[in-house]
Amino acid sequence: MPGTDGAPASDTLELARRARRAGLKLQAVSTDKKNAALRAIHESLRVARQRVLEANAADCAEAAQRGDVSGPALKRLDLSGAGKYDTLLAGVQQVERLADPVGRVTLATELAAGGPRLYRVSCPIGVLCVIFESRPDAAVQISTLGLKSSNAVLLKGGREALRTNRALVDAMRAGIAAELGEEAADVVQLVSTRSEVAELLQMDRYVDLVIPRGSNALVRYIQQNTTIPVLGHADGICMCYVDASADADMAAAVVLDSKTQYPAACNALETLLCHKEAAERGVLAQVAATLLQHGVELRAEPRALSYLQDLSATKEGGGGRVVPATDDDFNTEFLALTAAVKVVDTLSDAMAHVNEHGSHHTDCIITQDAAAAEEFMAGVDSAGVYHNVSTRFADGFRYGFGSEVGVSTNRIHARGPVGLDGLVIYKYRLHGNGDLVTQFTDGKREFTHQSLPLKLPAAGK
Amino acid sequence: MPGTDGAPASDTLELARRARRAGLKLQAVSTDKKNAALRAIHESLRVARQRVLEANAADCAEAAQRGDVSGPALKRLDLSGAGKYDTLLAGVQQVERLADPVGRVTLATELAAGGPRLYRVSCPIGVLCVIFESRPDAAVQISTLGLKSSNAVLLKGGREALRTNRALVDAMRAGIAAELGEEAADVVQLVSTRSEVAELLQMDRYVDLVIPRGSNALVRYIQQNTTIPVLGHADGICMCYVDASADADMAAAVVLDSKTQYPAACNALETLLCHKEAAERGVLAQVAATLLQHGVELRAEPRALSYLQDLSATKEGGGGRVVPATDDDFNTEFLALTAAVKVVDTLSDAMAHVNEHGSHHTDCIITQDAAAAEEFMAGVDSAGVYHNVSTRFADGFRYGFGSEVGVSTNRIHARGPVGLDGLVIYKYRLHGNGDLVTQFTDGKREFTHQSLPLKLPAAGK
Repeated sequence: MPGTDGAPASDTLELARRARRAGLKLQAVSTDKKNAALRAIHESLRVARQRVLEANAADCAEAAQRGDVSGPALKRLDLSGAGKYDTLLAGVQQVERLADPVGRVTLATELAAGGPRLYRVSCPIGVLCVIFESRPDAAVQISTLGLKSSNAVLLKGGREALRTNRALVDAMRAGIAAELGEEAADVVQLVSTRSEVAELLQMDRYVDLVIPRGSNALVRYIQQNTTIPVLGHADGICMCYVDASADADMAAAVVLDSKTQYPAACNALETLLCHKEAAERGVLAQVAATLLQHGVELRAEPRALSYLQDLSATKEGGGGRVVPATDDDFNTEFLALTAAVKVVDTLSDAMAHVNEHGSHHTDCIITQDAAAAEEFMAGVDSAGVYHNVSTRFADGFRYGFGSEVGVSTNRIHARGPVGLDGLVIYKYRLHGNGDLVTQFTDGKREFTHQSLPLKLPAAGK
Repeated sequence: MPGTDGAPASDTLELARRARRAGLKLQAVSTDKKNAALRAIHESLRVARQRVLEANAADCAEAAQRGDVSGPALKRLDLSGAGKYDTLLAGVQQVERLADPVGRVTLATELAAGGPRLYRVSCPIGVLCVIFESRPDAAVQISTLGLKSSNAVLLKGGREALRTNRALVDAMRAGIAAELGEEAADVVQLVSTRSEVAELLQMDRYVDLVIPRGSNALVRYIQQNTTIPVLGHADGICMCYVDASADADMAAAVVLDSKTQYPAACNALETLLCHKEAAERGVLAQVAATLLQHGVELRAEPRALSYLQDLSATKEGGGGRVVPATDDDFNTEFLALTAAVKVVDTLSDAMAHVNEHGSHHTDCIITQDAAAAEEFMAGVDSAGVYHNVSTRFADGFRYGFGSEVGVSTNRIHARGPVGLDGLVIYKYRLHGNGDLVTQFTDGKREFTHQSLPLKLPAAGK
């Protein structure tokens, strides 16, 4: 991702500084004012529909002509489809209705009799740099989630969506400016070149969190080129493990949904594990037959292959087939109608395989045995641990978060689908009356640490 | 921090793998068993007192002879002082009494009528690499906090404390092994060389969080040499701002405590800001006189200097003095009896100075004006925002967390003093009965997102 356009560093620095400044001011803006700004964004985007769709048509035409954007990506880029722009507008209203994640008191303690009183209060992270590909609706989703949580956002969209993103960001900024003033509009800014992103990745004084939404290569590049924290996931190697006592019909249905409901998603199944007893009972063959009927290619290690020989020979309809697996297949995110298949001796072996080869995203056990389910869910080290349910449920909307900025496989801060809650941190407020540590080290006072109601004192206390 | 001992990479890798393995097993260990292990550690350390103190005496003697360890550091290294070992033992019992941070349900939702049911449950981060200097009691504090939160810890202490840390870690591992088995002892391991640390910083598959406790240079080195998340703080440039309406006596007392109660701490005051009206009223002179009497050198910018001329001339007792400040003084963590002093025109200017020059650690406003206090606490972007109270309260023990692994100025995950709560993340458990996403996209079922009691279903549901 080398610099290509030679923009002077100072422009990007100024952009980041403006985001920091506007973001700091946004911290003091009330929920009502933020919601008014979201309504203004909605109105501004509604009025700009024609302009946005023209920009989008130009982007789509150029991408189609250039031919370097895949079919599915071109489809995601195109906003002209039935109801797509209305859905985008409805999303803004949905974010307005979400509860404000800022200002929640999560701990309140009177440190000693008479004070000081400590309050832990949620507050925005600060300035977020979000890098995303092709879907221009993501620009609106991220900006509105950022505003609702009082964060400034620097958006870098795909080159193929530049006109669309510019039109959308212009409209959103106009809405913010109308409600909160010109300077406040700097909480949403568009970055258009890779070299600007490369510069931002070095500005740890002005950017607090980078959220890459895109290919493994993009995420890895960013992780390796910044000291700013990165929230996201590289791979999504999700697995279903069919346990000894699994119900065959349920296993077939859950695995089929996990694999084929939307194979290009990060929460789609990539590896199928099966207990040897379930394989002996014919469960693996039934699951495999279902997948083959839906066109899935199964890459099976030798023992799994032995249970699937007949299927392989008959090549049932639907275009699926069974082939021998390579070792790499068990570390691969296919994002297609392909799955690796392995038979294991024990639940422990299954868990070890998931923890070693998975990407700690979302993994499921299919079993009628509650104790086995509990062992799997406690021992598998993933953001989502599921029992008898499709891995495709790993999604902010389905979890009830309203919307998501992405899915995280990080081990700190936020894990799994990340909604508004993941865009805040907290600060400690300590309200005193001239309290000194010396009073305590001298033995004149002592700490009592009494819990208080989770509510800030009224101004003036 | 280049490699110096030529240890083969595989040894460090094996150590990290063992930590991961033992840590995964620790996730399934009950609170009662973990507390039993903490009691076993306490007993083992109690029995090992003589051995540890002999090792410590050897470390102290060598450090004194080598002469490259500062006086205060040598004092922190020495465990032979009155009650120091007893305090260390009492600390283990205190961690045993803290609530288990693992297994808390913080969100429970029935996604649709009849299920699936979603639970967000706290769980350990995994493997922590903690790098600390001189204080060997930190090894015990960190290891026991790690065990209580089901994390494995890789400890790298200072070279000067190697014998002591070895003796302490051997004793702790023996205690863990006695209660939880030999393999479980690998949740606490000592790393002894810088080259091993350099290797660990590259092992993002096996190490989940790095916690450096030490100099700015150490923290910066680590931030720049790993893609693993780093929790901690580099600088601690804390400030007190004396507002227009500040009470002069309170200002003098709070600033004195903040600056002199323990100047080497990260939460000690480094910069004093004063509103011009308070300076006109003589508040700045009173605060400065108090500091000078306690030997503080004040580095004042020109306007502040104008209010301190008389004091400067008289040079009151106590060894303090007033000198002109350089620009650098306002970006410096002195960690000594030195403070930079500046007069500002407005509360806004004070906040802008804190946000621009501070390290977002802990900053205080001294004022009788509740509205000004509220504006400062809302607008200052620091882990701790204080009103009329010494910055020295920024500490896990004083906050009532029992103990701390360090103080964080990160903008994600954990901020301020970090106790047990900062050592956990969460996973999402989804309990279903063959639920498929297809049922929802087909319109056969719909999401209802009903909140459930914050309690996991009984096994077997």
